[in-house]
Amino acid sequence: MILEHALLQVKPGQTPAFEAAMRQALPLIQATPGFVRLELRRCIEVPDRHLLQVWWQCLENHTEDFRRSDRYQQWRALLHHFYDPMPQVDHYNEAILSTDAG
Amino acid sequence: MILEHALLQVKPGQTPAFEAAMRQALPLIQATPGFVRLELRRCIEVPDRHLLQVWWQCLENHTEDFRRSDRYQQWRALLHHFYDPMPQVDHYNEAILSTDAG
Repeated sequence: MILEHALLQVKPGQTPAFEAAMRQALPLIQATPGFVRLELRRCIEVPDRHLLQVWWQCLENHTEDFRRSDRYQQWRALLHHFYDPMPQVDHYNEAILSTDAG
Repeated sequence: MILEHALLQVKPGQTPAFEAAMRQALPLIQATPGFVRLELRRCIEVPDRHLLQVWWQCLENHTEDFRRSDRYQQWRALLHHFYDPMPQVDHYNEAILSTDAG
């Protein structure tokens, strides 16, 4: 399983509209083969910054199966105009270190 | 519960030493009141970049209980010399949107 990671800087004051659009866009990504889970969180320190994390069964489920789909074009149309700057999207492997309270 | 988030750019080639130091440093953070869980992941696209995520019961468990402790001074001594640049550390609230495969 791999983790897609993006820090989304939403244009000032547009967080409510962005979050509504993300809710609307969810089925587009959920319908992708290998989609496991999505989480969207708000930053405490920086207004209008969000952390988007999506777990996929493998990297190509995101880079090929989702990004080359028609659903990704709809996703872009719904969401990309909220971002300034456009986010850098990275992927991370399984945790090499992971622990619960000792 | 809140999520501490940092993208750690480790100096070129120092990833193995950094990961060993992080393993050594773990008990220092684990001993902190409110510590819940830590995950460290390697970036797929960017060499020597890691994603550090720590779940805390509340923000002050990190900003006060850990950062003002003697254990944090040891943590810094073990880890901070690996980073270039020094990372920005942010905190994120509980997910406002979270889903499993639809």
